[in-house]
Amino acid sequence: MGPSGRRPGTSGARQAILRAAREQFGRHGYDAATIRGIAAQAGVDPALVHHYFGTKEGVFVEAMRLPFRPSEIVDTVHDDAGTAGERLVRLFLSVWESPASRDALQGLIRSAVSHEQAASMLREFITKELIGRVATVVDRPDAQLRGALVGAHMIGLGMLRYVLRVEPLASADPDDLVALIGPTLQRYLTG
Amino acid sequence: MGPSGRRPGTSGARQAILRAAREQFGRHGYDAATIRGIAAQAGVDPALVHHYFGTKEGVFVEAMRLPFRPSEIVDTVHDDAGTAGERLVRLFLSVWESPASRDALQGLIRSAVSHEQAASMLREFITKELIGRVATVVDRPDAQLRGALVGAHMIGLGMLRYVLRVEPLASADPDDLVALIGPTLQRYLTG
Repeated sequence: MGPSGRRPGTSGARQAILRAAREQFGRHGYDAATIRGIAAQAGVDPALVHHYFGTKEGVFVEAMRLPFRPSEIVDTVHDDAGTAGERLVRLFLSVWESPASRDALQGLIRSAVSHEQAASMLREFITKELIGRVATVVDRPDAQLRGALVGAHMIGLGMLRYVLRVEPLASADPDDLVALIGPTLQRYLTG
Repeated sequence: MGPSGRRPGTSGARQAILRAAREQFGRHGYDAATIRGIAAQAGVDPALVHHYFGTKEGVFVEAMRLPFRPSEIVDTVHDDAGTAGERLVRLFLSVWESPASRDALQGLIRSAVSHEQAASMLREFITKELIGRVATVVDRPDAQLRGALVGAHMIGLGMLRYVLRVEPLASADPDDLVALIGPTLQRYLTG
């Protein structure tokens, strides 16, 4: 046992799984890729993939170095749907404010607008794990569309504030943004 | 005189001006580039640049192959500020629905997220000619920020609907989008 209490080779297996995951997601897309396929390519047992990363969402988040798990976002919405708008804006801003997360998100946007393969992976992931989950709290026939509009507003905010750094958005106080944008998201969710 | 009634060489001068404009905007940014500098580099009189393209905005729009003039957007808002939200969404969707415009906008987003020079040009242009103009109709101390939020929502809509093609946004009926998003923009403008 090493000083971390892990068996030697653990980190090697973990890295092999992430490499295999990037290839499988790239080749088959998010929906069609499976933990079984990822494990086979990495030469490990599927149980080890579950052990390290939990779900397919967890593998994707780690493989793509996403700075957050969409399921956290859904918890935010589920906690109290009536005030979810403001909390969603605040959570989104806090993720982007960390420089490491910002680099990861910027890299993701960059590949998605330049490579159809990356776009397709991200599309399926956003649809299923983000919009699909947000939509479960919207009590309307057009719940998926409303969930997508929440996503659209947040992605545009990220683009203008953090990627293009357009003023006065780039240096606006987060509290002002929460006060202005919160009611918009709230209307999409429950309005 | 050619069949178009123009003197021969007209199209050559026009192309030389656009080439010079792309270089001048790239080197100096949108704010610092001047019609005089563009004309000097193209070897023509500044009056000819004004003749072909009107304002600096006009030169930029043609040089970057933008599918619309921001001043059209402002006209939309000025016409009747009380209903501008829905009309802005409709105008935005109609620009993206044309395949040629879509390619141009996608190319622009692609370079802006990958090249700091392109990002900087676009940032200054969006700030001055789009947000600045929209903000003139907002009767609030935070008019610029509200104008920027209108832009953020529209850019995010473009990214998800047309670039990433996320469902159900990608195939949503434009009328449904106008009905859902119009009130959001209206609240940013006059709410």
